[in-house]
Amino acid sequence: MPTDAVLSLVSRITPVDARAGERTRAYLDTLTKPPGSLGQLEALAIQLGAITGTATPSVSSPSVVVFAADHGVAEEGVSAFPQAVTAQMVANFANGGAAINVFARQIGARVDVVDVGVAAPLDLPDVIDARVRAGTANFTKADAMSRDETLAAMGAGVAAVERARYAGARTIIVGEMGIANTTASSAMLAVFCAVPVAQVVGAGTGITGAQQAHKVAVIEQAIDARQPDPDDPLAVLGKLGGLEIAAMTGAYFAAALHRLPAIVDGFIATVAALTACRLCPAVRGYLVFGHQSEEPGHLTALEALEAKPLLNLGMRLGEGSGAALAYPLLQAATAMLNEMATFADAGISDKTSP
Amino acid sequence: MPTDAVLSLVSRITPVDARAGERTRAYLDTLTKPPGSLGQLEALAIQLGAITGTATPSVSSPSVVVFAADHGVAEEGVSAFPQAVTAQMVANFANGGAAINVFARQIGARVDVVDVGVAAPLDLPDVIDARVRAGTANFTKADAMSRDETLAAMGAGVAAVERARYAGARTIIVGEMGIANTTASSAMLAVFCAVPVAQVVGAGTGITGAQQAHKVAVIEQAIDARQPDPDDPLAVLGKLGGLEIAAMTGAYFAAALHRLPAIVDGFIATVAALTACRLCPAVRGYLVFGHQSEEPGHLTALEALEAKPLLNLGMRLGEGSGAALAYPLLQAATAMLNEMATFADAGISDKTSP
Repeated sequence: MPTDAVLSLVSRITPVDARAGERTRAYLDTLTKPPGSLGQLEALAIQLGAITGTATPSVSSPSVVVFAADHGVAEEGVSAFPQAVTAQMVANFANGGAAINVFARQIGARVDVVDVGVAAPLDLPDVIDARVRAGTANFTKADAMSRDETLAAMGAGVAAVERARYAGARTIIVGEMGIANTTASSAMLAVFCAVPVAQVVGAGTGITGAQQAHKVAVIEQAIDARQPDPDDPLAVLGKLGGLEIAAMTGAYFAAALHRLPAIVDGFIATVAALTACRLCPAVRGYLVFGHQSEEPGHLTALEALEAKPLLNLGMRLGEGSGAALAYPLLQAATAMLNEMATFADAGISDKTSP
Repeated sequence: MPTDAVLSLVSRITPVDARAGERTRAYLDTLTKPPGSLGQLEALAIQLGAITGTATPSVSSPSVVVFAADHGVAEEGVSAFPQAVTAQMVANFANGGAAINVFARQIGARVDVVDVGVAAPLDLPDVIDARVRAGTANFTKADAMSRDETLAAMGAGVAAVERARYAGARTIIVGEMGIANTTASSAMLAVFCAVPVAQVVGAGTGITGAQQAHKVAVIEQAIDARQPDPDDPLAVLGKLGGLEIAAMTGAYFAAALHRLPAIVDGFIATVAALTACRLCPAVRGYLVFGHQSEEPGHLTALEALEAKPLLNLGMRLGEGSGAALAYPLLQAATAMLNEMATFADAGISDKTSP
């Protein structure tokens, strides 16, 4: 899509339907259970009512889109794995052997893998080619991407969600792969939230203490050099972000535009979601947070979005894996609305008055 | 089954196979993900390996057993709902309209409803009749059950799990229904853990502050009157427990005997699980904890079992609902073991040496 088209799409996003949510809330209290006793599942049902604009929403079928790209900053030695792993894992996705493939099969979701900028050329017919450039620039030395490249990657995210929707998706799960992308996400988050870099840097795929200190220093140096304006989310994304992070941001826009719930995965996904919400606050209502990651910056990102994830299993894998694991809870929330008997149906006595 | 048969069954329970668990742990680190990055899901996979004694366990299909019974102490006004609701909810289970029916359908589980002592006579052909007595005695005035009644209810729990296993169940989900059963569970837990009653009493199905103080007073009075020996779990269960709580205890024994994972639901289920573990510590390894309930005593019960539940969604419904919602995570843990590619299979580079 033409790069300006992304921004015009953003202007057409409208907030979720709060009145539909209230109708769902009222209906929940007629069902055969003590009021409120299904806790966060009830809040989720209300949100899904508001997103879809109906008291009896459906979230089936789900679709997973994984965006892959490389990061120039990988050459600074910030990751536990070499850059070649990005392309190798894309091949693993294409062959159905990664965790996200396994969890997607379990929930009956198709998986689209989109190359928005892996450094090495891929020869994988099952991977969607939406390459913007062969990995970002090393952001300690130059902006990661130009504005046009940022918008092009966002457009690839929009297109991927529209493709999934056309194929019948009613819930969008967005994942990523990109060696060094926790480095880019930590940099963006430190700028967005004006917090010390050390607060939002963790082990990534498994670096040790000394490597972590190096990662902090690299990010601090990059922020000094790039001087992004925290109030210009597109500039923060372009200077410090990544092609897959931009694509995820675009994917959340498309989900919101089409009134589809998007399940947000872990740290990198949440930074992309925060970027989308800074550009268009109405997106927030369409986001369901799948899981709380072990990556320490995730908490900062979640707090900035006032989000409480559904799962907290100490995971730190990415790929959309935590979001896919959370999907059965969305199914359960809608099944509760669509299938449970009411007190009147079942002829059950009211609560004893206090 | 003859009442002594339950105790002879307990003597045949053996611990989980720790060596099989270690083989699973080693295999997990060959899969295409950073070591440990799937967090609690990996711990769950290791436990399922140890329970089933194989590195590639299967947990399908699951089966739900809901035990229903009434409590004499309901006449003290400790619940937000009248006693008639127990029988009405059993009819709702039989008609497939309750939350547990909805969540069981989602995971492909059959639901067996077992009447171990509902006060009102039931005329429901789809409910299994294993009535021991028409509700327990009011434990402020007499022991809730005799020793023989306790063992008979436990035997009904064993039989229900053996029936499910014969029908193909490979995971057992145990639920309950019984107006006033949080009162019985709180009383048992206060004795088992030697904690103040007020620490383990909550809102149940929705009582208010003054009613909660009354509930505490009723339980304190009962413990004073019954004087159960905390080191005699069978006596604590008989004097202060309930028929469905005894049946659940028996169900956990049967799951352990047959090396099947049992997903423990919320507060009442966890008190039954604690009772089973006090009688036979080897049971602990077969228990997977489904969710953290809002009921405050649940935390005390979980700590006594050193258990960390999979979900924490602020739920407080019972019926086995939280355990059923957790089942997809067991499926995911086994699918990860059975379907993910290894680093060697996928030709993926090793971690850069630090």
